[in-house]
Amino acid sequence: MTEYGGIETGGSQWEGAIGSGPEQLAATATIPTTTPAETIGAAVAFFEAHGPVLAVGIGSFGPVDRDPSSPTWGYITTTPKPGWSHTDVAPEIGRRLGVPVAFDTDVNAAALGEGRYGAAQGLETFCYVTVGTGIGGGGMVGGRLLHGLIHPEFGHMRIPHDREADPFPGVCPYHGDCWEGLASGRSIEARWGRPGEQLEGVDEVWELEARYLALGLVSVMCVISPERIVLGGGVMRTPGLIERVRGHIAGLVNGYLRAPAVSEMDRYVTPPALGPRSGVLGAIAMAETAYASSA
Amino acid sequence: MTEYGGIETGGSQWEGAIGSGPEQLAATATIPTTTPAETIGAAVAFFEAHGPVLAVGIGSFGPVDRDPSSPTWGYITTTPKPGWSHTDVAPEIGRRLGVPVAFDTDVNAAALGEGRYGAAQGLETFCYVTVGTGIGGGGMVGGRLLHGLIHPEFGHMRIPHDREADPFPGVCPYHGDCWEGLASGRSIEARWGRPGEQLEGVDEVWELEARYLALGLVSVMCVISPERIVLGGGVMRTPGLIERVRGHIAGLVNGYLRAPAVSEMDRYVTPPALGPRSGVLGAIAMAETAYASSA
Repeated sequence: MTEYGGIETGGSQWEGAIGSGPEQLAATATIPTTTPAETIGAAVAFFEAHGPVLAVGIGSFGPVDRDPSSPTWGYITTTPKPGWSHTDVAPEIGRRLGVPVAFDTDVNAAALGEGRYGAAQGLETFCYVTVGTGIGGGGMVGGRLLHGLIHPEFGHMRIPHDREADPFPGVCPYHGDCWEGLASGRSIEARWGRPGEQLEGVDEVWELEARYLALGLVSVMCVISPERIVLGGGVMRTPGLIERVRGHIAGLVNGYLRAPAVSEMDRYVTPPALGPRSGVLGAIAMAETAYASSA
Repeated sequence: MTEYGGIETGGSQWEGAIGSGPEQLAATATIPTTTPAETIGAAVAFFEAHGPVLAVGIGSFGPVDRDPSSPTWGYITTTPKPGWSHTDVAPEIGRRLGVPVAFDTDVNAAALGEGRYGAAQGLETFCYVTVGTGIGGGGMVGGRLLHGLIHPEFGHMRIPHDREADPFPGVCPYHGDCWEGLASGRSIEARWGRPGEQLEGVDEVWELEARYLALGLVSVMCVISPERIVLGGGVMRTPGLIERVRGHIAGLVNGYLRAPAVSEMDRYVTPPALGPRSGVLGAIAMAETAYASSA
């Protein structure tokens, strides 16, 4: 069996997997994110113990450097996460395992996973948005992952913020009330004094949250015209939230974008089909491509 | 000399051209937009008189149908422009000239023109935004024009609107204070009671305008991470406006997107290099591709 390695690096844990698709996983691991040396070491040890693998794909929290001509390709760059700024994740793993390594953002990896095996199969233009501690987004346009100058930073769009209705200033250290500043899990906890898990059933919380999420998603719709929006992350596991988001999107679009897909909102805005494994499965797909192009 | 036809259909006039690039234009024409029959007839007559052409590319005001499997492919669809709703622009021109026809939005055609011959040459991911009567945008991601489910509708993103500072409700019939509703040429005239041309030098007008334009452009940057933003249209011919927009973008980004290109703001946000011909030259490039794929 041909086996590839996938890693999704997260701020609190790394997910690792070995295999060649959702039904062909030989091994998986969850590694706590501690120091770079320790965490990278544990990932390498996992692949050595359960491999060998032909190549490794990494979907990483960021910001990341994925410019192949850059001397810091494969690095996590200016992250505020203590100890992780300027960490050479991909070069180090490639060097230690001696295999080709592909490197992208965690959200692009998740988008690729959902596109290859999950809720966006067969689509050329779609996005994957995750609402967790922060808000991130990735996706494909015409079959190509969104990369551009750096990589998408969906969470830092500005959205309308009615300070009379919601005087909360937002939690983004760079922008205050950008999308992530107003609608991330961190912002929910800061605004209401309790984490979202403890606010289930409080209408006011989730109406505001759904409206903010819909405002950002409408901007994404206006820019790339996705065929589908895959909406994941911890906050989206709140019962009833995705339904509220769909309702607000329909209200905001107000009939302007006339396409059958947009009126079938239940299918248009959908949870990930791969659950928490979108990212690591996308990373495996990246590894497959990296191996093919190195051969 | 191999000659292709290009048309940019606008709400007040159509631009036609025959040739194979900016330095190889055999003929150009400006046709007033009257009724569909008359306007299409004049365009066909132009190509017959100055052609023959091997294929025609059309960049059209919209919304348009560019789904090749649709029975209304090549139509202008739900436009509010009187008499033009459901007009079969591309099929009719193709039928009458007997040549292959390519069809896209005016802004994607302009983006393609700037990418092929103008300010975005050699870039794979960039956007073209026009600020005129309305606001429209198009562009490329990884070398592919933005299409997706329908096509981009940059103008209908929502942006922050401080109603205390600017109580103007916006002019968009669908959304009120969306980006186009707050920052298009039409909105400037409605807010201040005079068209932008008569407001030159009034700081208050252009500071507000620049801030709104920057807010929308930052959303585009966060979604597709363009390598460059080409910013055209009638409103952008206001002296000093593009400089103000650059300043507001830098302030809004606030150091978050770290890339040398973003700090070289004069090159990052740039006027079109082809002036008013971006669209019609992009249409010629579309015709060339349509001919090649039909041969």
